[in-house]
Amino acid sequence: FTHNFRYFQMPNKYPLQSYKSLNLPTLVCLALITIISVWKLKQFKYRLINEAGGAMFYGVFLGLAVRYLWVDREEHSENMGSVCSCHGLNSTPHVIMVNISSHGHCYRLIEKKGQRCSQLPSPHTGPFVIRKAMLDPQILFDLFLPPIIFFGAYTLNQRRFVGNLGSIVTYAFLGTIISSLCIGTLVYGFTRLMVLLRRAADGEFSLTDCLLFGAIMSATDPEVSVLGLLSDLRVDSDLHALLFGESVLNDAVAIVLTHAIASYDQMETGNVFQTPAFFRSVGFFVGVLIGSFLLGFIFTVITALLTKLTRLHESPLLETSIFFLLSWSSFLSAEACGLSGIVAVLFCGLSQAKYTNLNLSHEGSTRTKQLFEVLNFLGEIFIFGYMGYIWFTFRHHAFRALFISGAFLSIFISRACNIYPLSFLINLGRTKKISRNFQHFMVFAGLRGAVSFSLAVRDTSTEARRTILTTTLLLIGFTVWVLGAAADPLLSHLDL
Amino acid sequence: FTHNFRYFQMPNKYPLQSYKSLNLPTLVCLALITIISVWKLKQFKYRLINEAGGAMFYGVFLGLAVRYLWVDREEHSENMGSVCSCHGLNSTPHVIMVNISSHGHCYRLIEKKGQRCSQLPSPHTGPFVIRKAMLDPQILFDLFLPPIIFFGAYTLNQRRFVGNLGSIVTYAFLGTIISSLCIGTLVYGFTRLMVLLRRAADGEFSLTDCLLFGAIMSATDPEVSVLGLLSDLRVDSDLHALLFGESVLNDAVAIVLTHAIASYDQMETGNVFQTPAFFRSVGFFVGVLIGSFLLGFIFTVITALLTKLTRLHESPLLETSIFFLLSWSSFLSAEACGLSGIVAVLFCGLSQAKYTNLNLSHEGSTRTKQLFEVLNFLGEIFIFGYMGYIWFTFRHHAFRALFISGAFLSIFISRACNIYPLSFLINLGRTKKISRNFQHFMVFAGLRGAVSFSLAVRDTSTEARRTILTTTLLLIGFTVWVLGAAADPLLSHLDL
Repeated sequence: FTHNFRYFQMPNKYPLQSYKSLNLPTLVCLALITIISVWKLKQFKYRLINEAGGAMFYGVFLGLAVRYLWVDREEHSENMGSVCSCHGLNSTPHVIMVNISSHGHCYRLIEKKGQRCSQLPSPHTGPFVIRKAMLDPQILFDLFLPPIIFFGAYTLNQRRFVGNLGSIVTYAFLGTIISSLCIGTLVYGFTRLMVLLRRAADGEFSLTDCLLFGAIMSATDPEVSVLGLLSDLRVDSDLHALLFGESVLNDAVAIVLTHAIASYDQMETGNVFQTPAFFRSVGFFVGVLIGSFLLGFIFTVITALLTKLTRLHESPLLETSIFFLLSWSSFLSAEACGLSGIVAVLFCGLSQAKYTNLNLSHEGSTRTKQLFEVLNFLGEIFIFGYMGYIWFTFRHHAFRALFISGAFLSIFISRACNIYPLSFLINLGRTKKISRNFQHFMVFAGLRGAVSFSLAVRDTSTEARRTILTTTLLLIGFTVWVLGAAADPLLSHLDL
Repeated sequence: FTHNFRYFQMPNKYPLQSYKSLNLPTLVCLALITIISVWKLKQFKYRLINEAGGAMFYGVFLGLAVRYLWVDREEHSENMGSVCSCHGLNSTPHVIMVNISSHGHCYRLIEKKGQRCSQLPSPHTGPFVIRKAMLDPQILFDLFLPPIIFFGAYTLNQRRFVGNLGSIVTYAFLGTIISSLCIGTLVYGFTRLMVLLRRAADGEFSLTDCLLFGAIMSATDPEVSVLGLLSDLRVDSDLHALLFGESVLNDAVAIVLTHAIASYDQMETGNVFQTPAFFRSVGFFVGVLIGSFLLGFIFTVITALLTKLTRLHESPLLETSIFFLLSWSSFLSAEACGLSGIVAVLFCGLSQAKYTNLNLSHEGSTRTKQLFEVLNFLGEIFIFGYMGYIWFTFRHHAFRALFISGAFLSIFISRACNIYPLSFLINLGRTKKISRNFQHFMVFAGLRGAVSFSLAVRDTSTEARRTILTTTLLLIGFTVWVLGAAADPLLSHLDL
């Protein structure tokens, strides 16, 4: 299944070029404004907005300004003469040099598009399209998402996490799969309705597309104000670990599930259910999950042995550096092996907290945590700011009212179908039951964030995928702003 | 002079594509091996090698392996049909899409070459050259050099620095200019000798090229074992501040001097001395130095006011984040204004230490220092490792025995011409004289490092520039390995 994964990955590796990118100074400026204003608001005891929501808000604002104040300066498309001899190459060149107005220009490969790509005017005559871009947004995800995920996993309360492992794994695995299926079928129902009402062509949205959307929407974000609220309000720390642990682990499941569904989509021909393709996808799902888990774990073992057996703890700087490099290696090598880097770094964070953290000196441990805290904080602001920015600057939004309504409805229903039955099952085996009120809260606490966005944005080649991106962005905004702000009153209402 | 600077910058912005680049996993692996082995050596009291030297050593090794084990898989050049309609564009496209084997491929602009570029086979018929590359090495400098420089400036002992400001500024300004002129003329003498001995064509090395080399070689590196040794051995802290302060500040002078000479070179026609071009370069030198200084200072003022007037010190995480973002902004905005980012970040570091550091909470201050310490440590290893890697993988080395001998000779003579007379002058005004033995030590402590390399590597378009790069690499290796290792015995010999 490595082959399939690569097949899926290759055409979608750098798909973000179809909207304008932010440049670095603007992003830094955005981050500064966000930090200062959210912090000022918090000083006035206005706790409804958090950094993520604030960054997204300013991002939307900036995108609006860019969209309506200087739209056409950036985009420049032109058809060029065909480049005939390119057809004879047996491998893709990484750097090409082009002569423009008798100056040499060096270009580097950033995106390899599949044959079904709709943005190339005519894929068979060899056209040459020119567009302007600034910062490559993929860098944002490669650079900032791993530390965010790592930090989430690394700062889990280890004792509570292990104590509730059964419940957490049940929620994360079964829950995510239930949630994906539930969202997928519900949204598929709505797309059938769209076909009936002649709002969509038959075959525009396949069941696989809907299930893909379900998987994308099943990744709940651990890094939001809700969890901060919970710890401030001294909610029972078992429940806190349960909610946080579920959010962290279900990212892994949702990511691999998305890849598995996409790989099925690549193998599928026509709309007929294909048994071998299905089982290969299931194998792919299990394989990537286990592979990434093992890879993350291997790097933890290396780190743990290195910190245990040597006297590295005499130098906190070296400890932190080695810890950082080895954890980052788990991401890089997973990506290099065709596995999921984010999942590897997640498991690496979980196991580093358990096995390595105790070997570190006190100062080394504090330093490491603080380093990742800063990276997590800045990364979250950058990513959410960018998410807001995309709202008005992505040029190919596909607003489908029925799809969006179906999606809105489904995220609540799916969350309910996931939490209530599973909690009932889990409570059968627990001495300390999960209360009804906490279950209500868990249903509402499923905010969506950076992981959903990064999954939705990977491929925007078809109308269905663009609809998914648009809907994902709307749902993220809704959950972060509305559900995030409602968490505080809800908690006091539920008397937790 | 902004115009000139841009003119100089544009063709050299991304000149590193002419040698193979490292990919990220290899670089991380290299860093890990370096850290662990240097640390192990230090445990056995073998203090002669430091992290920078170790990283360079492993880099050379890796480069050797890559060069002789898999040479031809990476490089792939091919001439393509001409792209006629490109000539009509009034601005350069940032992204182009090319159709290769009926798949769309997206390419992004990384390098704009001047008309005198030698790598394009025939610049007027519109060729299309293809080369493979991996990690863009410019990222290394943009990402890691600023924190290294910032950390050096930020951790200067403020009280000692201000107390010795007169001496330090004299060494840094007059010293660097003396050193550049001295190296430049000496090396120019050797190039004339080369012409006489028919080892070089007349006009291959102009006086400007030699002066440029002088300026590049005048940047001494503050971040090397020598300074570590000094603090371990409890050398008088005034002298420590003197040596360290000189190393930090002369980077700024050398960088701007290099740019000024290069801008003169662009204006010069023929080998005749041009008075207006000379004065414009002097103006450029003063302007960029003052401009970058002011820009760095402005960002310090913003940070200082923000930390002083608000209650930001209640949250160390926010303090560190804002401190980091604002300091980084000084680099980004200087680059955006056409000034020197490195110089701006250097002055920003100096003034942040003086004005902002006291406003931070104790924890915020520690955190910030530790964050930059890690960035500095890892950045240094990455850059020195890369430097070693280049030795065997850069394909256009120009070894000129006479030029190299002249350069070797000149770095000692220039250092002597710089330190001894200036120390005499400075001692006239100091109550606490700089001892003869310490002057000897200062002559030997002038190691060259990342800044020299980053300046030398900016432009490799002519034979003279390639000779400069090769010689710079050799001299960096010599000073880091030989002089670095000799510092310990020398210190005990000089009885400091």
